[in-house]
Amino acid sequence: MIRASTCFPIPKQHDFSKFKATHKTFSPTIQSVQCNKGVLMTENQQVFKETLFQFEDYMVHKAKRVNEALDEAVPLRHPLKIHEAMRYSLLAGGKRVRPMLCIASCELVGGDESVALPVACAIEMIHTMSLIHDDLPCMDDDDYRRGKLTNHKAFGEETALLAGDALLFLAFEHVATRTAGVSPERVVRAVAEMSAAVGSEGLVAGQVLDVASEGQEVDLRELEYIHVHKTSKLLEAAVVCGAIMGGGETVDVERMHRLIVSSDVTKSSEELGKTAGKDLKTKKATYPRLMGIEKAREFADILVAEAKGELSHFDSSKAAPLHGLADYIAYRQN
Amino acid sequence: MIRASTCFPIPKQHDFSKFKATHKTFSPTIQSVQCNKGVLMTENQQVFKETLFQFEDYMVHKAKRVNEALDEAVPLRHPLKIHEAMRYSLLAGGKRVRPMLCIASCELVGGDESVALPVACAIEMIHTMSLIHDDLPCMDDDDYRRGKLTNHKAFGEETALLAGDALLFLAFEHVATRTAGVSPERVVRAVAEMSAAVGSEGLVAGQVLDVASEGQEVDLRELEYIHVHKTSKLLEAAVVCGAIMGGGETVDVERMHRLIVSSDVTKSSEELGKTAGKDLKTKKATYPRLMGIEKAREFADILVAEAKGELSHFDSSKAAPLHGLADYIAYRQN
Repeated sequence: MIRASTCFPIPKQHDFSKFKATHKTFSPTIQSVQCNKGVLMTENQQVFKETLFQFEDYMVHKAKRVNEALDEAVPLRHPLKIHEAMRYSLLAGGKRVRPMLCIASCELVGGDESVALPVACAIEMIHTMSLIHDDLPCMDDDDYRRGKLTNHKAFGEETALLAGDALLFLAFEHVATRTAGVSPERVVRAVAEMSAAVGSEGLVAGQVLDVASEGQEVDLRELEYIHVHKTSKLLEAAVVCGAIMGGGETVDVERMHRLIVSSDVTKSSEELGKTAGKDLKTKKATYPRLMGIEKAREFADILVAEAKGELSHFDSSKAAPLHGLADYIAYRQN
Repeated sequence: MIRASTCFPIPKQHDFSKFKATHKTFSPTIQSVQCNKGVLMTENQQVFKETLFQFEDYMVHKAKRVNEALDEAVPLRHPLKIHEAMRYSLLAGGKRVRPMLCIASCELVGGDESVALPVACAIEMIHTMSLIHDDLPCMDDDDYRRGKLTNHKAFGEETALLAGDALLFLAFEHVATRTAGVSPERVVRAVAEMSAAVGSEGLVAGQVLDVASEGQEVDLRELEYIHVHKTSKLLEAAVVCGAIMGGGETVDVERMHRLIVSSDVTKSSEELGKTAGKDLKTKKATYPRLMGIEKAREFADILVAEAKGELSHFDSSKAAPLHGLADYIAYRQN
C-alpha cells in the first residue's frame, strides 16, 4: 500500500477554527430535538423532516424515470458477462441523487427533463464506475455495496475492472449519441464538465489522496480537499451539466458551479454506503470523526445555507427540488 | 479466473478455410525472400522494406509532434503521484501508430494536422489506459511493457488503476476542450466514435473474451472477433475520427470505417510488446499460432490489399502515409 505525502495545497474554503473536535460536549448554539433513532437533530434537519413527504414523492418519480432510462441504456448484449456485470452495479438501487440534481437543475433554468436525461444517466454511470473501481481489492477491498456483494465479489476482479471501464466509455457515448434537442456546442461543454470533474484533478485526485491518507492523521482542510474532489465534484458536474443542457445562461451555470461545491454531506462513510463501521475500523477520516457529530451537523447547516443562497436567485417553486436535494444530501441518515 | 463461454456470434468476415494451420509446410503460392533476421518475407513485405526509409521520415516527424502534444497535455500537477503515473505510461515511447493514423486520415480528406491533433492524442491516451489496465495482476499480470516496468509495478496497483481511469477521462476532456477549428457537431461525432470503439461492444468486449479464452481452444473466427475488438476497433476509430475532424464527407468517413477493420496485424503478441514469449507460454491465441507464420503473412497480404482498395478512391500522394501505415501495421517486426 502506497503512503503518499499529506501535503495538500488546498485553498482555504472554510474557517474550521470553530469546528474543532467536541465529541463529548454539546454545543448550546444549536437547537436540537430528539429524533426517533435517538440521534440529535438540528433545527434545519427538523424542517427537512417536516417537508420530507412531498420531496419523497418527487424523488420517487424522478428515480423511476432514471431507472427506466438506465435499464434501457445497457441492454443484455454479447458478451453477456460484461453487460451483466455493468447492469448488476448500475441497477443496484442507488438513490439517483446525481441524476436528480441534473434534472432538477435543467428544469430550474427552464429546460425539459428529456434534454437532461442522457447526461443525467451518464453521470450515474460514471458514479457507478467509480464505486466499482473503489471497491476493488487494490483500493478499499470492500465485499458489500448497497447491501449486495461488490461487483468483483460477484463477477471476479477482471470483469469488475472492465465493467467499470465500459460504464465510463458508455457514459460519453450515451451523452454524444442520445442527447436530443440540445445544440452540439452545449453537448461538448457537458462532455468537458463531466470529464474534468472526475479526472486527475477531480474525483480521481480525491481517490488518490483518500487511499494515501488511510492510517494517517488528516486535518479538516485535507479532509475537505478529499471530500470536495471525491464526492462534490461529480455532484457539481451534475447540476452544472443540467443547467447547460437546459439552456441556462452563463450566469446560471456559474451559480450551479457554486451550489454544490459547498453543500456536501458531513457523513461520508454513511453516504458511501460502505460496509458498516469499515471507515471507523480503518480510521478513514470523516467530518464526524474529526469534528464530532454535533459540530459536523452545524457545519452542514452552514453549507446548506450557502447553497440555498445561490438558489435564492431563481423562482422559488422551480428551485424547490434543489432545496430538497441540498437538505437530503446534507442530512440523510442512510 | 473466470472462464467464459467460447460461443462467439461473429458475422463471418473472412474465409478461413484456406488458412488452416500449416506450421511445417511452406505455401508455394507466396513468393518469399530471406530477410536479415532469417524469417521469411512475402513479396509485399519486400516492397514495404524498399519504401521504408521515406515512410520512416514521416513517422519520425509525426511521432515528434504527437509526443510534444502528449507531454503538454499531462503536466505534473497536484496530486503529483497520479500525474507521474499517467506520464510514465503515456510518454513511454510507443510508436504512436493510432495518432498517426488519425492525422494521416485528416490530411487525406484535406484537413490540417492541427485539427486532428487533440483527438489523435485522446486516442493514444485511451490506448495507454487499456494497456495499463490490461497489465494489472487481475488481467494479464505483466511485469514489463515497452521494455519498462508496467505501471502497477512502478507505482502500485491502486495508482495504476486510477492512472488508467484518469487518462480515460482526460481523453474526453482533451477532445472537448482542446479541439479548435472544427464544428461542435463534428466533435460530438468524434466523441461518439471514440467511446463506442472502446466500450462493452468494442475494445472491452475483445478484452473480456481474450481473458476468457486463455487456456481454451480458440478457432480462427473466435480469434478474429477478439482481434477486431481488442485492437482494430481503436485503430478504426483513429482513422474515422481523423476524417471527421478533417471535414471529410460521409462517404470518406465510411471508407475510413472499412479501411482498418480489415487491415490489422497478424502478430498480436509482438504488436502488444508483451513480455517475450508470454503469449506462447499462456497459450494465448494468435494468428501465427493458429495458421502458421506463412499463412498468417498471406492473410496479412489480403487484409492490406483490402485496405488499399479503399484508399484507391483518394489522391495517391495524399494516401501515401496511410498506405505506409497499413504496411507498417501488418508487417512490422517489433
